[in-house]
Parts: sequence; structure tokens; C-alpha cells
Amino acid sequence: MSVLTTADSSPTAAVDLGPAAALSCRECGERFPLSPIFACASCFGPLEIAYDLPSGDPEGLRRRIEAGPKSIWRYAPLLPVPADVASKPNLNPGFTPLVKADRLAAELGVTGPLYVKDDSGNPTHSFKDRVVAQALEAARAFGFTTLSCSSTGNLAGAVGAAAARAGLRSCVFIPHDLEQGKVVMAAVYGGQVVAIEGSYDDVNRFCSELIGDPLGEGWGFVNVNLRPYYAEGSKTLAFEICEQLGWQLPDQLVIPIASGSQLTKIDKGLKELIATGLVEEKPYRIFGAQAEGCSPVSQAFRAGHDVVRPVKPNTIAKSLAIGNPADGPYVLDIARRTGGAVADVTDEEIVSAIKLLARTEGIFTETAGGVTLGVARKLLAEGTLDPSLTTVVVNTGDGLKTLDAVAADTGPTATIRPTLDSFREAGLE
Amino acid sequence: MSVLTTADSSPTAAVDLGPAAALSCRECGERFPLSPIFACASCFGPLEIAYDLPSGDPEGLRRRIEAGPKSIWRYAPLLPVPADVASKPNLNPGFTPLVKADRLAAELGVTGPLYVKDDSGNPTHSFKDRVVAQALEAARAFGFTTLSCSSTGNLAGAVGAAAARAGLRSCVFIPHDLEQGKVVMAAVYGGQVVAIEGSYDDVNRFCSELIGDPLGEGWGFVNVNLRPYYAEGSKTLAFEICEQLGWQLPDQLVIPIASGSQLTKIDKGLKELIATGLVEEKPYRIFGAQAEGCSPVSQAFRAGHDVVRPVKPNTIAKSLAIGNPADGPYVLDIARRTGGAVADVTDEEIVSAIKLLARTEGIFTETAGGVTLGVARKLLAEGTLDPSLTTVVVNTGDGLKTLDAVAADTGPTATIRPTLDSFREAGLE
Ligand SMILES: [Zn+2]
Ligand SMILES: [Zn+2]
Repeated sequence: MSVLTTADSSPTAAVDLGPAAALSCRECGERFPLSPIFACASCFGPLEIAYDLPSGDPEGLRRRIEAGPKSIWRYAPLLPVPADVASKPNLNPGFTPLVKADRLAAELGVTGPLYVKDDSGNPTHSFKDRVVAQALEAARAFGFTTLSCSSTGNLAGAVGAAAARAGLRSCVFIPHDLEQGKVVMAAVYGGQVVAIEGSYDDVNRFCSELIGDPLGEGWGFVNVNLRPYYAEGSKTLAFEICEQLGWQLPDQLVIPIASGSQLTKIDKGLKELIATGLVEEKPYRIFGAQAEGCSPVSQAFRAGHDVVRPVKPNTIAKSLAIGNPADGPYVLDIARRTGGAVADVTDEEIVSAIKLLARTEGIFTETAGGVTLGVARKLLAEGTLDPSLTTVVVNTGDGLKTLDAVAADTGPTATIRPTLDSFREAGLE
Repeated sequence: MSVLTTADSSPTAAVDLGPAAALSCRECGERFPLSPIFACASCFGPLEIAYDLPSGDPEGLRRRIEAGPKSIWRYAPLLPVPADVASKPNLNPGFTPLVKADRLAAELGVTGPLYVKDDSGNPTHSFKDRVVAQALEAARAFGFTTLSCSSTGNLAGAVGAAAARAGLRSCVFIPHDLEQGKVVMAAVYGGQVVAIEGSYDDVNRFCSELIGDPLGEGWGFVNVNLRPYYAEGSKTLAFEICEQLGWQLPDQLVIPIASGSQLTKIDKGLKELIATGLVEEKPYRIFGAQAEGCSPVSQAFRAGHDVVRPVKPNTIAKSLAIGNPADGPYVLDIARRTGGAVADVTDEEIVSAIKLLARTEGIFTETAGGVTLGVARKLLAEGTLDPSLTTVVVNTGDGLKTLDAVAADTGPTATIRPTLDSFREAGLE
């Protein structure tokens, strides 16, 4: 994602996005009014949301959350959304299961409680529904009439579905050579789907141009000009994990890295839970997971570097294949500061981890989930993850979306004639 | 599904399946102890569960349910499962969203509240997780060590996932010519998948033989010898709909018909809610939905017949393609008794309904969901469904599983070069 300021976006004073108070530069700290901008006018650093968070009555806040809807909107007091967000038409994502994975733990030699946060239960079956739901509220607040994005597939579907439910127009941009299944998932919601002759980078560059052009007036690009709002959605994973653990921080979290945004926002969410008194402070460690074929952050971590050298992705984990991750340096900082790590696994290890999770817990994850569990397994074997602590592995999506990854060697055990003799001969009993 | 008694199944007296008291013949009423049998020894009629249901304190029961887990197990007091069911490893399906579909209602000219019960949020993304979860508990109660089924694909995945999570062996039987995607979904959970050279009918016949043979000892076939338990899972759809409506019966329900079991069990569930005092009695109407290419029940309804003449299925709605639906006569009875109807739609109307639901509500349903919504639309146009009443349309599964149905004509709106000029020329703004 290229980071550009837009010269012509005029801040709207009357915007009601709940506890969101301003945009704040992650590099120089300068503050800007809430508006559809995404880079600091002074230093071009990335912007994020600054809050006036509720304080003084954590017990009351906890009760209010627990009485709220069974979706991310139970955490509305901690998100950049208006207080009445749950009453507006949206997909109500979140509050997905935190699965206690005892059989997986046994196979991995984990003695402390091991959990899988399973986001495949979201409306379009990935965590993207969480972030798009925030961007949708920002789009409404800024008066945008078209919801848009650049996407390699999954995000396009999440945006199309959210816009359809909200009654907004949508127009999403994808590379022209996407698999048919992903195109169908993007187009079935009836919005406009524009295929771009070029790579995902070309799609991104085009979207940045469109935002600066009168043609793009009224367009909210969830992952470009609405990115500061959008990104906050990942915090809800942190909120849910802690609430589902009985309002406690886990000891260790393993999180996949694409742009790195999700990992940094989960850390931000944990810190906000501590700041509001919803959980008691204690040390936690954050581990980042990449595929070897796209492991710029993992390489930098191993080398002890603070900067991330871009790579050209080549992995089956396509939803994580961002060669120049914008939040890479922040991820390195968080992993080092919390005593965590960043590591990577091969495509073979990804497939093996997908099968391990399916076989032990009945959860069929996409390739990104295979990366995360694969890295958890590797870090356990190395002794980097402590097997005696409370550990959460984040599963961001659904295996139905990346069937090809396992199709080659996942077939029938036997083919027989419909007779008992034939069954007996197959020797399966 | 052929209906056979198994001579060698000895009833187990000590079985704890909660409020389930006995098996009862739907034809002659004869009762049998709880055991893995599925047909009456006297008249070969189908068996169903008879209960000692809780009575006398509906308020207390309601509170107990509302304080329960966010899954079907909140209704454990009304299901054939032990009281501690939620503490055993299982996929915890259910409590899926009841989506208020205002934009869909507006397009259909519906003025009363219209809801979609969206079961695509279940662990393997179809209502099958509900029924398999009941069969799993019965399997545990009867000491079975292998979970099995005959399947055209979706059920095999649900059984594989449930067995994996429970730590049981699984072995599922499928026709040898299934699409690769469905084979992957069945096999990825690591159980045995046996492809049978023959049709789905051949697979069924083989499974019935296997149950009667020593080779099949210790095997629980969820949809054969565990069918009476399995089928009860569909009642949870009725329970959830009424609870989500604020403990009220809807006026009209539209439900897909494959074997017809789901529709009859939803009716049974509604009656049990009335019997226990959880909802107030009032008239409700049940409508059944079939694809024109497999519409034996709809044809019988139209002709005023009590019996259902088998057909050879030919429709894109493969998960509903049962040409000789075992519960067809019961469906006819329920539709007539409640003042409902049974109708069917063409494959084109199915695809059109899938797109309508995606475009208006952001819900991507499988072909079975297209059948149900298509029939609802047709019945509204005919004046058979009352547009002013509270109506629930049941969506049993996920569009990701039947991508082919919409793939042919769901593509990009335009393909452009990555320039503003090229975008302008496409005329999309
Ligand atoms: Zn700055
Ligand atoms: Zn009988």
C-alpha cells in the first residue's frame, strides 16, 4: 500500500465517531481532525485514531459490554463508531469462538491452555468483516456513497457484502488474473467489480490516483483513505480474546503478518484494555507469523534489523503475500518489546499445519491459518514459545477459500465397489 | 434412504440422553427403549424420540436457556443429549444470526417483518452441524467408536469435522464421481473417506448392508442407525428462531425440502415450545420449498395427493436432490394442516434468488437457499404468503460450497488498464 496524503480532503467538524477524538501521526505525534486522510501532512507518517476512552468505572464498562450485542459492537465504547452503530444495517461480524484446543495441545506437547481464535465464523468467513465494518461507519460519517477497495480477492467480497447490506454502492478493484472463485465471491453481491490489467501493486497505484481525482469524489476506499478507521477493527480480536478468557490477558499470542496492521492493532487493543482497567496489566508476548516465500519481517527480525527489506512474494499463502509490509517496523518493535519473535514456515509446513488443525480440532483453516499454526509449532519445537503458558493462535479465515492448497494430496482413502467383499478387501476396518 | 430394522442391536438400559425417554413409531405409536435402531419392529414405520419434557416452570426454563452457552446446547433440556453435553469436545454449532432483512423485504413488497435465519455461520457452514452434533452424542451414549454416514458431500465434511474434534474415528461413504472440492472438504479432517463406484442410492444401500454386518460393529451412521437422534437437531432451528423473536412464534416459515426431515422437525420443535410454555400458542403456517428438477412433494401438494411419487432428480440444487423423500407424506400433512403450501422453482429462479439475497442483504447462500428464497418470492407474488405477517426464510448453507451455480454469469463489470482515462472510458462512475 503506497502512503499518500490527499490535498483536497477537508476535515468535517461535526463527525460523530464515538470515542474517536482525532487522527494522530504514529511518527511525529501531530494531531489532525477526524477526516478521510491517512498520512501525516508534516512527515508523511501513518495516521491512527486517538481516543477519549471511558475511564474511572471499569466494572460498569465491563457490565455494559457483557450486556451488549453478540458482535464487535459490544465494544462500541472503544471503537471509532457512533454509539447507535448496532442499529444501522451492517453485517454484525465478530464475537467468534475462542476454541480450547486440547487435542491440538496434546499433539504439540503444550501443557498450558491452548486456544484457537476462529474467525472463519464471520459473515464472509474472514477477519476482514471486522475491519470493513469500521470503514463502513467512517464512510457513512464522511458522507461517502461508494464503498471501495483494492483487493486480491477476499477483501473485495467483504466490501461487496457490507455495502450490499448497508444499501451503499460498491466498486472494488482487483487484478485481472484472479482465480474465478474469488471473482465470483467479489461480484455476487451485485456491486461493480473492475479488473485491472496489471499486478496488485498496479491496482493500488491506480486507487491512490483515483482518490486524488474528481472521479473518485464520494468514494471511501476502506484500505486507503479510510485506512486509519478500518485498521482499528483488528483491535476487536484482542477485546474478544480477553473477554472470552474471563477478562484476562493471554500470556502468548501468535498472529499472521500481511501488512502487519493486524498484529500492531491487536497490541494496541490489549494496551487499551489495560488503560481502561478492563483487564489487569501483566506481561504478554506477541509472535508474528509469515510464509517463507514472503518473509521480509521475519528476515529482519532474525538479522536484528529495524527496517524491512521488500521481497517479491512467492507462497501459497496469497492473503499474506505483501512483499513490502507497511507496518513491518512496528511489528519488529512490538515483537522485541514484548519478548516475542517473528518466524516463517515453508509452503509444505503450511499445508501440514492446515491438516493438523483439521485432524485434531475439526477446524478447516485457510493458508494464512496454516502459516500461523505452522509458526506456532516451529516456535514450540525451538523452545521460543513456552508450552506451559496460556497461548492463543489467531485463525483469520476459512479453508473453503483456499481449497487448492490441500487439494493435490487430499482425496479418498479408497475406492471400492458397493459390496461388503470389496470393502473388506480394502482393509480399512 | 432405505428403512431397515437391525436385528442385532440390543437396547442399552443405562443410556443417559437427557429428556429423551424412548423411541416411538410415527405410524403405530409403539415405543422402544433408546437404542441405535431407526424403524419400527412391528410396522417398519420411522422412529422418533419421545421426551419427558420439563413442565410447570416455563419462566425458570426460559432463564436457564438464556443463561446457557451461545450454541444449540442452551436447549439441552429439550434435546436427546446428556445435561453436561456442552463440556464434551464438540463443534458447538448453532445460535446463528436471525437477520432482519429490510432491504430484501422492500424489494419483495413485504410490509411485515421479514427475517433470514442464516445457518451459513455454523462451523462447517451448513445446518448439518446441528444434526451431526446430536448424532455424535448418541454415538457416545451407545459406545460407538466410529462416526459414519452416506453423503453427497456436505454431510461427509460435517461428520469428519465433528469426529475430529471429538477424537472419534470417522469413515464416510461418498459416490466416486463427486466434485474435487467436496472430496477435499470431506477428507481434510483426516478421517477415512471411501468412494463407492455407483450412485448415491448405491452408497446408501451399501451402508445399510454394512450396519447389519459384523464389519459395521461399533459404527454409528449419523443418517441411518442414528437417524432418530440426528434428525432432532433440526428442532434447534425452531428454538432459536422463536427465542430470537423474543420467545414468539413467527406467522410464516419457508423451509427447504430434501428428505423433508428438517421441515417436520421444525414443526415438532415449535409444538414442543408450545407444550413447555416457552411460547404462547398461536397459528403458524409452514411452507416447503423444492427445486422444479426434484419436486415430488410439491407435485403431490398441487395434485392434492397424500403419497409422494418418486422422481429422478435433475437440478443444480444438489443438496436437495432426493427423489424419494422419506418424510414427504409428513411434509404434505404439515403444510395442509397449518394452512401452508409446498411449491418449486426453476434453476434460473434459484440463481436469481441467490443473487437477490446477496445484493440486498450481503448474504451469499448456496443453491438450497436460492430454492427457499425463490419459492418465498413466488408464493408472495401468487398471494399465498401474506406480505403483512412475520415471515422467516431458512437459509441452510453457504454459497462458497456451490460456486458453480453462479459462476457462469458472475464476473467483473469491466476490465481496464490501470489509468484514469481507461476507467473513465469504461463509463462506470
Ligand atoms: Zn507526522
Ligand atoms: Zn410401528
